[in-house]
Amino acid sequence: MSAAQDRITQLEKRLTLLEDRLAILNLIASYGPAVDSVDGDAVAAMWNENGSYDFGGDPLIGRDNVAALIDLDTHRAYVSAGSAHVLSNPSITLSGDRAIAVNYSQVFVKSGDGWRADRTCANRWELTRTAGGWKVESRTNRLLDGSEPARQLLSRSHEPDVG
Amino acid sequence: MSAAQDRITQLEKRLTLLEDRLAILNLIASYGPAVDSVDGDAVAAMWNENGSYDFGGDPLIGRDNVAALIDLDTHRAYVSAGSAHVLSNPSITLSGDRAIAVNYSQVFVKSGDGWRADRTCANRWELTRTAGGWKVESRTNRLLDGSEPARQLLSRSHEPDVG
Amino acid sequence: MSAAQDRITQLEKRLTLLEDRLAILNLIASYGPAVDSVDGDAVAAMWNENGSYDFGGDPLIGRDNVAALIDLDTHRAYVSAGSAHVLSNPSITLSGDRAIAVNYSQVFVKSGDGWRADRTCANRWELTRTAGGWKVESRTNRLLDGSEPARQLLSRSHEPDVG
Repeated sequence: MSAAQDRITQLEKRLTLLEDRLAILNLIASYGPAVDSVDGDAVAAMWNENGSYDFGGDPLIGRDNVAALIDLDTHRAYVSAGSAHVLSNPSITLSGDRAIAVNYSQVFVKSGDGWRADRTCANRWELTRTAGGWKVESRTNRLLDGSEPARQLLSRSHEPDVG
Repeated sequence: MSAAQDRITQLEKRLTLLEDRLAILNLIASYGPAVDSVDGDAVAAMWNENGSYDFGGDPLIGRDNVAALIDLDTHRAYVSAGSAHVLSNPSITLSGDRAIAVNYSQVFVKSGDGWRADRTCANRWELTRTAGGWKVESRTNRLLDGSEPARQLLSRSHEPDVG
Repeated sequence: MSAAQDRITQLEKRLTLLEDRLAILNLIASYGPAVDSVDGDAVAAMWNENGSYDFGGDPLIGRDNVAALIDLDTHRAYVSAGSAHVLSNPSITLSGDRAIAVNYSQVFVKSGDGWRADRTCANRWELTRTAGGWKVESRTNRLLDGSEPARQLLSRSHEPDVG
């Protein structure tokens, strides 16, 4: 019986790691639909209460301030023209109740008879397990325009300690 | 023993949810390779027998009619020019034997010395568990051109009841 | 007790299949950040010791030769201009200690006030389970320019036997 219980305990641990990964994949996949449908509540629900989003200027701090990005003139202009905030499949590093995810985000905007990539960014997400599921603690992105900051976000050597 | 069996039963339930998510991720990821290699059988295998695909005109109803899209002039022209039907990582909501997935699809077509996004759509997939695995019951997409229908597909408030 | 042990054994098998899928998803998602941050060690860590990467000319054979692609003039020029190597969600077929993954790769490069897709390829990955986790045994890609080789990579009928 003890051997069986050990196997069960091992299964529970391994399963939790997979649930964590899939929850984080799903969380990040919900960002684009939230902002492109101008749904501030859906954006807020992704972030932890004091979570932040730093996309190059003054960081937005607190989930309500992050959600308010849907009312920025630049965002309204994207949506009016026709926009897709496409986020790539992230590389995820789990560490207990914290996780780091690294991926790309692109904003495609209708232009003429097609869509052009108006933004292409490197992203680093710091995520945390809460009573309400995995949430974004901080998201930082920078334009991949050949300058150093974006490359640093993608680099393993600049990974903050998630332990 | 009863406690161990309860834990096993719980594990089986949790594992099935993860299997469902990964099956749906893999299903949606197989669409692009199927249509870009002009493989009608591979397209048909994704859909439920009476499943549908509505991309703006008259919906294609029934898996064979969906698969016939590979013979449309527009599709043949894409493939001849060089095309990639790229589908983003979906946000998935499971509900027993049904699921909703929301994501973006883009068609990149060779043009000059690069590839241009000829289509960029919001997608809502209704999926169902069958004896042959998860299949597409309906897929609806609309161009993200600034008009309302595409935004509605991305919006949580327009989610059909999957219960 | 025997029935419970059978259930545990089944759970272990099913769980391993999911771990394999998520490990492969994460592996492929780490390619872009590795090359766009010019981290040769991170590229090498993805490949098996004798693994290869064939992107149209002479294949790079051996993980060190694959990693050396970060020093190619074309790659350096991408990174200086500002580049995102974006890989789509793969369709994965598992077979024991081997797997095949099929997806798209695109290189977006800063150009004017946006980013253009300078490369759009069909990809077939052959992966293998090693003591150090899942690694790339071979990656083959071809430009989706309307010619046959790229379509063959996407086609099920050209799948090598992974058994």
